[in-house]
Amino acid sequence: MADLPRGNAIIGQSGGPTAVINQSLVGVIESIKPGGPIQRLMGAVHGVKGIKEGRFIDLLGRSADQLERIAATPCAALGSTRDKPDADYCKALFEVFKKNDVRYFFYIGGNDSADTARIVSEMAKEAAYPLRVFHIPKTIDNDLRLTDHCPGYGSAARFVASAIMGDDRDNASLPGVKIDIIMGRHAGWLTAASVLGRMDDTCGPHLVYVPEAPVSRTKFVDDVAAAYAKHGRCLVAMSEGVEDPDSGKAWGEKIVEAAERDSHGNVQLSGSGALGDFFAEVVKKDVAAKLGNKKLRVRADTFGYLQRSFAGYASPVDQAEARLAGRKAMEYVLAGFESGTVAFKRVGQGKNYAVECFRGELRDVARETKDLPKNWINAAGNGITQDFIDYALPLVGELPRLGNFWEK
Amino acid sequence: MADLPRGNAIIGQSGGPTAVINQSLVGVIESIKPGGPIQRLMGAVHGVKGIKEGRFIDLLGRSADQLERIAATPCAALGSTRDKPDADYCKALFEVFKKNDVRYFFYIGGNDSADTARIVSEMAKEAAYPLRVFHIPKTIDNDLRLTDHCPGYGSAARFVASAIMGDDRDNASLPGVKIDIIMGRHAGWLTAASVLGRMDDTCGPHLVYVPEAPVSRTKFVDDVAAAYAKHGRCLVAMSEGVEDPDSGKAWGEKIVEAAERDSHGNVQLSGSGALGDFFAEVVKKDVAAKLGNKKLRVRADTFGYLQRSFAGYASPVDQAEARLAGRKAMEYVLAGFESGTVAFKRVGQGKNYAVECFRGELRDVARETKDLPKNWINAAGNGITQDFIDYALPLVGELPRLGNFWEK
Repeated sequence: MADLPRGNAIIGQSGGPTAVINQSLVGVIESIKPGGPIQRLMGAVHGVKGIKEGRFIDLLGRSADQLERIAATPCAALGSTRDKPDADYCKALFEVFKKNDVRYFFYIGGNDSADTARIVSEMAKEAAYPLRVFHIPKTIDNDLRLTDHCPGYGSAARFVASAIMGDDRDNASLPGVKIDIIMGRHAGWLTAASVLGRMDDTCGPHLVYVPEAPVSRTKFVDDVAAAYAKHGRCLVAMSEGVEDPDSGKAWGEKIVEAAERDSHGNVQLSGSGALGDFFAEVVKKDVAAKLGNKKLRVRADTFGYLQRSFAGYASPVDQAEARLAGRKAMEYVLAGFESGTVAFKRVGQGKNYAVECFRGELRDVARETKDLPKNWINAAGNGITQDFIDYALPLVGELPRLGNFWEK
Repeated sequence: MADLPRGNAIIGQSGGPTAVINQSLVGVIESIKPGGPIQRLMGAVHGVKGIKEGRFIDLLGRSADQLERIAATPCAALGSTRDKPDADYCKALFEVFKKNDVRYFFYIGGNDSADTARIVSEMAKEAAYPLRVFHIPKTIDNDLRLTDHCPGYGSAARFVASAIMGDDRDNASLPGVKIDIIMGRHAGWLTAASVLGRMDDTCGPHLVYVPEAPVSRTKFVDDVAAAYAKHGRCLVAMSEGVEDPDSGKAWGEKIVEAAERDSHGNVQLSGSGALGDFFAEVVKKDVAAKLGNKKLRVRADTFGYLQRSFAGYASPVDQAEARLAGRKAMEYVLAGFESGTVAFKRVGQGKNYAVECFRGELRDVARETKDLPKNWINAAGNGITQDFIDYALPLVGELPRLGNFWEK
């Protein structure tokens, strides 16, 4: 074990919840052993906001049963925040760190949280305050750089794949056009997961739109009409952040009037049915006219927060990996690293799928994000390729085995 | 075995899909043995519509693996329909029955489908066409009379309970007001299921609104403001059919302009985010003003079709009972009954929960529906009592065991 400062640790959770963010939390908790450098593990209530306000929960000394139930519980058990500290905010954090003899800071979150960790780490250095800072990745968006994939993504992708498997059967039962709006403001990773459970080419989603491939109203209408003509129905999976190529803006931005902005300056597309309802109206007007079908049945669902928070249906692979990420953060700390993030490297494909962890630098995951590779989107810009399926299928765990009467 | 006509059978599925409607289908299929009165089992593609158009799939001779996968697949494997036959439609059906030597007709559906079965049965008698007609109940709405509960409800209730368990943790992670719109135009059974997974009184849903207890805008605003003041957040579960007491109309009806009507004359409230978005705006305006909180975080999700069609998360109890209902229909046929429906009687409570089946008359489930008992709604009209929990908990299977840091 490296020569480490004795003192206390703070851990916090930040950003949008996932189904496995508590696995990482428990991974850190269970890695703290008596006799080690960390005396007390303080859970920050609502992330950096809780630190600033001095709101903590003592996390050590919990029973294994309680920890396992917390690990299996979706969303941030400590509470989350969207606060992003500036210099003054950081000063306030250091006051609390000093007051509580805090020498270790773990922050579980996405790229914004990695940037927060980076800022805190750099300001600690400037202030000559010895602080070990580790970021543990989580995001359903799967858009962090450096890592093969992100804890939280597999479970959200499992939810989306299963929801679409069922909704495709719903659409086959009562045919019409159905539009499903899936989370993802800038990257199409989660929407792409809609294809993972297709039984064959007759099954939906028949069209998939992601932010990386903008779609005009005309193209959308042509695509839906063609799919409907072919299948007698059409299931569309669409990212909430899909863009209009003419304006370069997200359709949701164009539609949602007086869009509420959260404190990171992002437009709110989740928690509203507006985008789905808009495209349903487009189908009712333009596609119905094109097909000469006045009775065209059109519905839209916005999957919303269920994608990130649904209880009891997390991916077992994702659960285990998120737990591992927490443990590895502590391992890197005990090995003497001053800061970093935990990342996954894939070391086996398909049935031999496996990951190894490595330590990355905070600056390499902070701020910028990673799009779905362009060559995993089909040439028509309305579908997802086999390469993506090969990538994502090991992450979601076993999907339901469906059946039908047309197979032999 | 009773003296039964030798001939063929038709089975169809009708109305909105459920997660277990194919269990009942497979229950009938597997009950047909060689040497019995039924020679051929014809699956009607899209219910009565498929019969009229002569579209059938042969259902016997399938492998056990295929049948099990179909049973586990949500939504109507044969396709569904909202068609409701009138006299002329029925005549067309009889022509097909005669042409195909059909002596048995099984129809899986809700109260509208039971009424269809009743009409077909009565018209067969008038036409002196010997036809055995059985209805097998299914509906996520749980609103059929006669039976203790309906196949399909347990799985939808399991989905809603788990979704709310997760969304409550989401709401606790990032506090604000969250409104979840749950299916149920006339009855609150499914929305009531939102309370089944609450860890304790601090957990949401903090408010539950069902069609049986109309709520004014003023009362809604007062309720949300009070819950927010108490918990620092508020999770609302609301039926899509919740009514405005002043007009006596559903809020959704008032809101959705130019509401699309399906062929049973029902206003479409599903497949649109309008109702949730409307109440989110009410909170943003009225509740925020009342609380003096301009930054109040408000979101709405409409659970939509996922409630009835999600793949891989059905209630095991519901699956087994839906299968049983299919088998029992065949048992009643073989016992010589000319028509009827399958109903459940509860013969044990709590951990001793068990059901027995009995045969009911078609007229006793057709048309009219069953509301949530008034005394299972709290006095304030915004919550659900323990009696409902005792009733519904055995139907949903084991719910996820969640954990938290505030327990001792």
